[in-house]
Amino acid sequence: MRISAIGEFALIERIRRILPKPHDALLGIGDDCAALRPTAGRDLLLTTDLLVDEVDFTRQTITPFRLGRKAMGVNLSDIAAMGGLPRAALVTLAIPPEEEIEFVDELYRGLREEGAQFAVEVIGGDLSASATLMIGVTLVGEVEVGKAVTRSGAKPGERIWVTGRLGAAAAGLIALKAGFRLLDDHVETPYEVSGSLQEDIRQAIERHLCPIPRIREGRALAQAGVASAMIDLSDGLASDLTHLCRESGVSATIREDQIPIDQAASAVAQRFAQEPLALALQGGEDFELLFTSSWDPADIVAMFPDAVTVTAIGKVWEAGHGCRLERQDGRAVALAGGYDHFWQQ
Amino acid sequence: MRISAIGEFALIERIRRILPKPHDALLGIGDDCAALRPTAGRDLLLTTDLLVDEVDFTRQTITPFRLGRKAMGVNLSDIAAMGGLPRAALVTLAIPPEEEIEFVDELYRGLREEGAQFAVEVIGGDLSASATLMIGVTLVGEVEVGKAVTRSGAKPGERIWVTGRLGAAAAGLIALKAGFRLLDDHVETPYEVSGSLQEDIRQAIERHLCPIPRIREGRALAQAGVASAMIDLSDGLASDLTHLCRESGVSATIREDQIPIDQAASAVAQRFAQEPLALALQGGEDFELLFTSSWDPADIVAMFPDAVTVTAIGKVWEAGHGCRLERQDGRAVALAGGYDHFWQQ
Repeated sequence: MRISAIGEFALIERIRRILPKPHDALLGIGDDCAALRPTAGRDLLLTTDLLVDEVDFTRQTITPFRLGRKAMGVNLSDIAAMGGLPRAALVTLAIPPEEEIEFVDELYRGLREEGAQFAVEVIGGDLSASATLMIGVTLVGEVEVGKAVTRSGAKPGERIWVTGRLGAAAAGLIALKAGFRLLDDHVETPYEVSGSLQEDIRQAIERHLCPIPRIREGRALAQAGVASAMIDLSDGLASDLTHLCRESGVSATIREDQIPIDQAASAVAQRFAQEPLALALQGGEDFELLFTSSWDPADIVAMFPDAVTVTAIGKVWEAGHGCRLERQDGRAVALAGGYDHFWQQ
Repeated sequence: MRISAIGEFALIERIRRILPKPHDALLGIGDDCAALRPTAGRDLLLTTDLLVDEVDFTRQTITPFRLGRKAMGVNLSDIAAMGGLPRAALVTLAIPPEEEIEFVDELYRGLREEGAQFAVEVIGGDLSASATLMIGVTLVGEVEVGKAVTRSGAKPGERIWVTGRLGAAAAGLIALKAGFRLLDDHVETPYEVSGSLQEDIRQAIERHLCPIPRIREGRALAQAGVASAMIDLSDGLASDLTHLCRESGVSATIREDQIPIDQAASAVAQRFAQEPLALALQGGEDFELLFTSSWDPADIVAMFPDAVTVTAIGKVWEAGHGCRLERQDGRAVALAGGYDHFWQQ
C-alpha cells in the first residue's frame, strides 16, 4: 500500500507502533517537542547527518532496513568521535507519497535496531512529502563535563592513531558498482567468483552498508584522557586527518607501511585493479576513529584487548607542513582528496 | 557562482563566516558534534521541522532570506508550544550543486536573523547535495523541570483559548497563488487592487512567509501554570485541536462566533470568494498557540496586556463527542480537515 493511501497522521501512528515507547524520555513522539532530563555533571552533544537518495546511497544496493541502520549508525559514529554516550534520536523523513508503506516500516525497524545496540531510542522527528527520498537523524548524546574530545587538541610530538582496519567500506562500494549485491547475509554475484573472494566481497559490502560505530572505544579513550583530539573517518583518512590538523593548527606525517589495511579491502581492490592504499586514504565511510595522543604506545595498545585493533600510523608536527604521507621508499608526498558532496566525482 | 565551483568544505567555511561564533555553546560548527552545557534545573526540549521545495514552499514566492527565517520560525513555534526557551539550532541543508552560493548565504542570514530575536544560534548541522532543495532545523530548548506543557493535559470543564487572530497565513497563500508577491516590504500585484486591499494582502503574505513564534506568550503561560495543555497551530485549528483532544483523551466544542478571525484574512478571503472561517479552521501555519485552562478568564486576559490578544473559543468535554463547532444558529457540526503532507490536495 502507498503512503498517499493512508496519509500523514496514520503514518505517524504506524511509526509510533514500530518504535518502542521510550524509557529514557520525558516525552516522545506525539507532542510539539520531545523532552529529556539531562544527566547531572554531563555536557550535551548534538549531531545531525542526512542521507540523500542517489547521493549518499542508491535504492538498488541497500534495503530500507539497512538504510535505517546506516542513517542511525553514521550519527552514532559522530558521538563516538567526541567520546560521548548517545542518548536519543530525532528522525526526519522526506519521502515521495507514492512510496510503499512497508518501505517506511522497514526503515524505522532499522533505525530502531541500530539504536537499540546503544540504548538509543527515537523520541521525535518530522515527516514530509518530497520528490527526493531523504533520511535525517539528529542524535543527542552526553559526555562528562569538559571531557568532550574535539578535533582541535592535537599537539606537535603526539602520535596519530587509528582504530580498526581501513578501506573495506570503499571496497564494498566498488563491488556494489560492479553489480555485486548483499541479500540478507549472502552475496549475489553478477558472474562467477571464488568462494574466498565472495566472502571478502560480502565483508566489504557489509561494511559499506552497515558502519560499526566505535562508541565503546571512543568512550574509553575520552574517559581515560588518552586522546588529545579525535575525529571519525567519514570522508577518508586523508581528508579527515586534514580536518583534524586544520582545527588543531598542526601538521602531520603518516607512514604508508603503518596504515592498517583491511584484508577484505586488499583482496577486493586487487580483483578490481585498484590500489588498496587509495581505498584507505581516499575512500570514505570506514567510521573508524582517528585520534592523537602523547601516551605511551604500549598503554594504548593495552586498552584494546578485544577484536578491535589500534595502530599508530604517524606523528603530529608544528604547523606549516600540511598533511604528508611517508612512502615506503622514504619520500614524503602531500595527502590529498576525500569525498566532497558538491564536486562532480 | 555555483556551489559546485567551490565544493563542500569551502561552503562550510563560508557559512561559518556568516554565522556569529556562538556565545552559548561549548563547541560550534567544525567538530563531529556541537556541545552545550545544560542549565541546572531544566529539562531539555527537542524539535525538528523540515521544509521541502515544492511541498512546504515554492521558490517563486519566497526569497532565500525569508525561507531561512521561516525554517527557524516554525521550529521556534514548537518550543513556544511547550512553554520552553529555545537555546540553539542545528541546520541541515540538501541542495542541488548547480544552485548559486548567494542563495545559501541569504538562507543562513535569514536563519541567523530569526534565531537572534530569541538568542538562538546555529551551532552545527550538515550539508548534502540533492536533486530537491530541503532545509531542516533541529532546535534545542529548555524548560523548568517538570513544567513542559504537553498536548495531553486538557481536562473536561476547562476553557479552550487561542492567542492572536487566525486565518492570515492561509489568506496569504491564496494571494500568492493568485500571483501577488511580496518584494522587500511592498506587494507586487498582477492587476490593479485598492490601496487598502493591497495592505491587507501584504499583511497576509507577510504572515504566511514569516511566522511569529509566540515564545514569550508560551513562557508566560507555562511559568504561571495557566495552560493544562498546549499546541501550536501549524496544521489548522480544526486539525490541531483534534490532535490535542486525542492526546488528552477528551472532546471539545468551539463556538463559531468566538473564533478571532484576522481582519486582513477576512478582507482577502472576501476578495477571493473564500469563507474567512474556513481559513481559520482549515488553513494552517498561523503558528498561534492553542491551549486549555481552568483559570478565570479575566486573569488570563490580564496576562496579555500588549498587542497579542487572547480569546476563549470553547470548552473541553469528556471523551466521546469528538471535536465540534457550534455554529451561530446553535447547531453543532463535526470539525474536520487540515493539512496532510501525503494526501493529494
